[in-house]
Amino acid sequence: MTVGNDQTSEGMTIWLTGLPSAGKTTIGSQVTEQLRAAGLNVEFLDGDVIRKRLFSELGYTKHDRDENVLRLAFLAHLLSRNGVIVVVAAIAPYRAIRQRIRESSTNFVEVYVNALSSVCEQRDVKGLYRKARRGELIGFTGVDDPYEPPVQPEVECRTDQETIAESAAKVLGYVSDHLPASAAVDVRKRLQIPRSAPS
Amino acid sequence: MTVGNDQTSEGMTIWLTGLPSAGKTTIGSQVTEQLRAAGLNVEFLDGDVIRKRLFSELGYTKHDRDENVLRLAFLAHLLSRNGVIVVVAAIAPYRAIRQRIRESSTNFVEVYVNALSSVCEQRDVKGLYRKARRGELIGFTGVDDPYEPPVQPEVECRTDQETIAESAAKVLGYVSDHLPASAAVDVRKRLQIPRSAPS
Repeated sequence: MTVGNDQTSEGMTIWLTGLPSAGKTTIGSQVTEQLRAAGLNVEFLDGDVIRKRLFSELGYTKHDRDENVLRLAFLAHLLSRNGVIVVVAAIAPYRAIRQRIRESSTNFVEVYVNALSSVCEQRDVKGLYRKARRGELIGFTGVDDPYEPPVQPEVECRTDQETIAESAAKVLGYVSDHLPASAAVDVRKRLQIPRSAPS
Repeated sequence: MTVGNDQTSEGMTIWLTGLPSAGKTTIGSQVTEQLRAAGLNVEFLDGDVIRKRLFSELGYTKHDRDENVLRLAFLAHLLSRNGVIVVVAAIAPYRAIRQRIRESSTNFVEVYVNALSSVCEQRDVKGLYRKARRGELIGFTGVDDPYEPPVQPEVECRTDQETIAESAAKVLGYVSDHLPASAAVDVRKRLQIPRSAPS
């Protein structure tokens, strides 16, 4: 941190953003497994897990949400500048902060994990929409806190219209076409991207 | 984090522990630069910098110190399990916690950066000993909070008796003899360890 890092082994940060229950963790896990199976150094940072483990003091005000996202981005940067492909699954609801992360990252890939909010709410994987509707959670993204969708994401997954495999394949397709040179050797052919995926 | 990581590209965690002003950051920077110059993926985590950037809510009670060290170790683990050599400079004053970190780390190298406490206090790089003596800082390691020295560190540097280059060479000598196979290729010969260094 106090020694400059000008090394060339760059990785990549694949950030999955979207509403709660849109499918970020599911797709992130799939993508991670497949990239790892292809022989890459891959780390999956699940926003909820990392927050609980490292930033448990942070709450859910706008300031704390922004801070959480910036710290996650810092972690991703530590890894990616050492050649690691980092998959981050975190709502990151505010556009301005995502833009800030993009500018300070190397090889930033924004993946919009998109599904109709009604579908996300119906899934309600963690039962949090219900709690928010009952007023037991304040400032819940998608209920009483805004989610600002990406304008030009590198990849958009429509998890209310595609299978998980199709969504994951979209991400993997993009990633394999944009791998940093140091990571790309021999990996593309090992990535098993289903034929149905968009190229 | 939710996807198991069973990959084989293991790195190493080199933890520099010692009193404030013992020379941890100085040696850590030297070691980092030389390992990096040898072509390795190396990250330097300076405990003070990371605490301020990521864990600023933590204070200096025993609980918070332990928590800070455990979180640092978690970061080091994220990096080292992706093949990165991580150099950590942090007091980590309590033996039990260092033991816990050792047990949960791959290739843990404990470096005791040792100097007489009177020498450290005289150096007082950040002016904190003075503040602590004046009672402006409570719970300062080496003044009114204990430092428990390592019992069997992999390396001991005596920064009150050696030059910085000699101390760094001790660490580099140990590290180059114990590099994980994946990192060791061609690196040993590129590490320029001064002849005066103990082997």
